[in-house]
Amino acid sequence: MKFIRVFGLVLTAALLSPTLQAADADERAQIATDTRQGLLKVVVSYFGPLVGMARGQIPFNAELVETNATKISTLVEMIPDVFRTDTRGADVETEALDHIWDNMDDFAGKAATVAERATALAGAASGGQDNFMQAFGATGGACKACHDEYRVQQ
Amino acid sequence: MKFIRVFGLVLTAALLSPTLQAADADERAQIATDTRQGLLKVVVSYFGPLVGMARGQIPFNAELVETNATKISTLVEMIPDVFRTDTRGADVETEALDHIWDNMDDFAGKAATVAERATALAGAASGGQDNFMQAFGATGGACKACHDEYRVQQ
Repeated sequence: MKFIRVFGLVLTAALLSPTLQAADADERAQIATDTRQGLLKVVVSYFGPLVGMARGQIPFNAELVETNATKISTLVEMIPDVFRTDTRGADVETEALDHIWDNMDDFAGKAATVAERATALAGAASGGQDNFMQAFGATGGACKACHDEYRVQQ
Repeated sequence: MKFIRVFGLVLTAALLSPTLQAADADERAQIATDTRQGLLKVVVSYFGPLVGMARGQIPFNAELVETNATKISTLVEMIPDVFRTDTRGADVETEALDHIWDNMDDFAGKAATVAERATALAGAASGGQDNFMQAFGATGGACKACHDEYRVQQ
């Protein structure tokens, strides 16, 4: 009885998404690509208001900076996980450059730097707008360092 | 000089993604949809190995359960944020039902229950496989409760 109940719920979880039934390498590569792009879209969504503040388009809000920068840091720490699947040679649309998977330690290190700077940004917010601007710039610089090395140049 | 440096980095951040320059309501709805689907894809990616363990397809690994369930909990807490943009009536492909935005408190409450159960799952892992199975079932049940109410039935 307990087994049946648990099994039913396991089945439910398995049906959460076709992801879990992925069959061939191309499907797995597409799912991995969608997942890593998905993570970065969430990062961007939390960055949006901070960019608005830095540009003076919306009022500086220390509490929101702290909240969003903390979430950005947590998300960015997941980057090495979601880039674990090597999609070199797979038929996927991606801006991720192949040499990510030749340099995973460096790539993960660059992501860790972004996470550290986002944590510092969260901490800096209570120090006022100048502190925010400086820490925001440092975080953006860490994003750029990774994009310059590992993303298709736009 | 400092202004120019900071401005350059702000501009860099603004160029992170077209997201930040979104113009009309339909574009914003598409970005919001992509972002929330992106978050859930990351959740599913961390669920995958737990489903494999629950089905006996891969060996039980308490440490991995704890790591992934903790990340799932953190991600699920972001659900109300990424569903904030009301996309009712927008031209987007989505399984999110319109009444999410009539019942945001209940929707957010259901997400909070998933997050709590995922945290409990992380804690249960060290208690062995039976504890894992029970806490995993409870987490899957909380996912299902939200899907049953707020997602297109499949």
